Amino acid sequence: MILQGKRTWVYSKPPVIIATGTVVGPDEGQGPLASDFDLVHPDLEMGQPTWEKSERLLMEQATDIALQHAKLSKDELNFYIGGDLLNQIISNTFAARTLGAPYLGVFGACSTSMESLAIASLIVASGAGNYAMAGTCSHNCTVEKQFRYPTEYGSQKPPTAQYTVTGAGASIVSREGNGPIVTAATIGKIMDLGIKDPFNMGAAMAPAAVDTIQGHLQDTGRDPGYYDMIVTGDLAGVGHPIANEMLRRNGVPMDQTQFLDCGLMIYDVEKQKVQAGGSGCACSAVVTYGHLLKRIHKGELRRVLVVATGALLSPLTFQQGESIPCVAHAVAIEAQNFEQQGGTAL
Amino acid sequence: MILQGKRTWVYSKPPVIIATGTVVGPDEGQGPLASDFDLVHPDLEMGQPTWEKSERLLMEQATDIALQHAKLSKDELNFYIGGDLLNQIISNTFAARTLGAPYLGVFGACSTSMESLAIASLIVASGAGNYAMAGTCSHNCTVEKQFRYPTEYGSQKPPTAQYTVTGAGASIVSREGNGPIVTAATIGKIMDLGIKDPFNMGAAMAPAAVDTIQGHLQDTGRDPGYYDMIVTGDLAGVGHPIANEMLRRNGVPMDQTQFLDCGLMIYDVEKQKVQAGGSGCACSAVVTYGHLLKRIHKGELRRVLVVATGALLSPLTFQQGESIPCVAHAVAIEAQNFEQQGGTAL
Repeated sequence: MILQGKRTWVYSKPPVIIATGTVVGPDEGQGPLASDFDLVHPDLEMGQPTWEKSERLLMEQATDIALQHAKLSKDELNFYIGGDLLNQIISNTFAARTLGAPYLGVFGACSTSMESLAIASLIVASGAGNYAMAGTCSHNCTVEKQFRYPTEYGSQKPPTAQYTVTGAGASIVSREGNGPIVTAATIGKIMDLGIKDPFNMGAAMAPAAVDTIQGHLQDTGRDPGYYDMIVTGDLAGVGHPIANEMLRRNGVPMDQTQFLDCGLMIYDVEKQKVQAGGSGCACSAVVTYGHLLKRIHKGELRRVLVVATGALLSPLTFQQGESIPCVAHAVAIEAQNFEQQGGTAL
Repeated sequence: MILQGKRTWVYSKPPVIIATGTVVGPDEGQGPLASDFDLVHPDLEMGQPTWEKSERLLMEQATDIALQHAKLSKDELNFYIGGDLLNQIISNTFAARTLGAPYLGVFGACSTSMESLAIASLIVASGAGNYAMAGTCSHNCTVEKQFRYPTEYGSQKPPTAQYTVTGAGASIVSREGNGPIVTAATIGKIMDLGIKDPFNMGAAMAPAAVDTIQGHLQDTGRDPGYYDMIVTGDLAGVGHPIANEMLRRNGVPMDQTQFLDCGLMIYDVEKQKVQAGGSGCACSAVVTYGHLLKRIHKGELRRVLVVATGALLSPLTFQQGESIPCVAHAVAIEAQNFEQQGGTAL
């Protein structure tokens, strides 16, 4: 492991993402990336008596599918690193109980997807584990209930609000094998520019994405063109243009065909009723593990930087008048044999 | 880094705990370990308008004191790894905002103390950081309010209940320096024997402590006598005898002078009104960083295994009829120059 710059890990022997599992709900199953997911549920209930149990099922299914794809038994998994948006990260705790693997719970709101992948990769790259799984999930109805109003209440939402993705994504990293490699991770700082509106989390999170992207480029000495794609987690229709403009003003202009957002990719924002776009722990997880990795496998992308953004919103501190602290963690994922194909070594 | 057995990290170049910071409230300041803490608050309010802000202050003070003791500036700190019991781990999120360091949020309920130390040590030992801080906190009134009843409600408690420690503990690990070293960590699995009583968390957590202790001994090939002391996190008066009995039945009997519990050490359980004893994220953190490390420094202890226990209790899943999943993470802390003094190498 090498610490590069202030806060970027460069994995000297990059771990391989040998398998993933992605499960989504009905809205994501009607979005443009539907065919990239392993399992699509036709309804939000999924046969469960509570929304929380539906969310747990999503996570259990994603971990199961990832294990199947990796042809690994539960016993062979050394560590599971997971988290979600629910209080006490219950979906992951119960999924970890089902899985039976040694478990590290993490929380970074929607940035948990890349926080867990960065830690899983650290464990494998440093020799502290042979197989580590990273997982995260969210469910539209559990999140609305916990953070805003229960869906059944039927409250209206402003166009700046985002639509929480129903889904779960899991990935297994290993020291060797076939698949894209995790080459670097940049850990985010808490950024808080004073935004207090829980219906405008994209704007709150944009500065965190900008800070982590700039930190990553500075630490690694790269320019944005190093990556075929830089993808933010869930800034959506309001936050992503803000991040774009902030980067431009900071002298780091992004190629507009290269700078995307998972929250804008997972839905047809024009046609589906998702306000500004997708959000939630599952958003960047299923887009990365389902869509982006498939594109790397196909050779359509060689180097991707996923910048998962998290609004660490607490209904309690919000009611106490506090602003929303945000964080973003970035993970660089690259095609394994790119160098052999004439690319530049890291 | 070496993975030993199924789930134990043996740090090949053990990181050094170069400094700690411990802050506690009035009850802990009247307990038997009072003189070991850096700062004792005379009241629970600490001049703050809400209990949550009091808890945040505890965490901010503990991180500040640790930095002062290490003679480090905030800028020199590479990573802060922290978590607490509050929803969205808000105390640590806000403390990380104040600190300004790259931040990895973790959650393992009261096991967070050793989860964060294990990850901070992994980061430093693997070369992914020069200085990493681990921190955790709890406040009696925030926790009662969130998990049971607000203190102001004045509800009675059964004798199996535990008293949440008001306090915060932080430690800084580094590649070199003076101080005790972190030699190994064993990551816990979710254990759940079906206990559903939030007023009897000690009993719920005992099997997790037992599983992690046995896993650690098995992975490392050690017997309990290797350690001068094996200390559970917060099993307290009900859970600790259960863990002791379970270990005895499993053929791993503990020397009774050597097998202790932070929840029983921090208070005078006979005289102070703390029911079965202490609990909370701060319990094992302040006892370890305040008391146990001082005893290692003084040469009174050479090898200690801290087994922080966490009841991943969710008021929501509890109301949905679920049991309480639990986890325990163990970290081995040893005197740095023990080998030179004639001890056996790891």
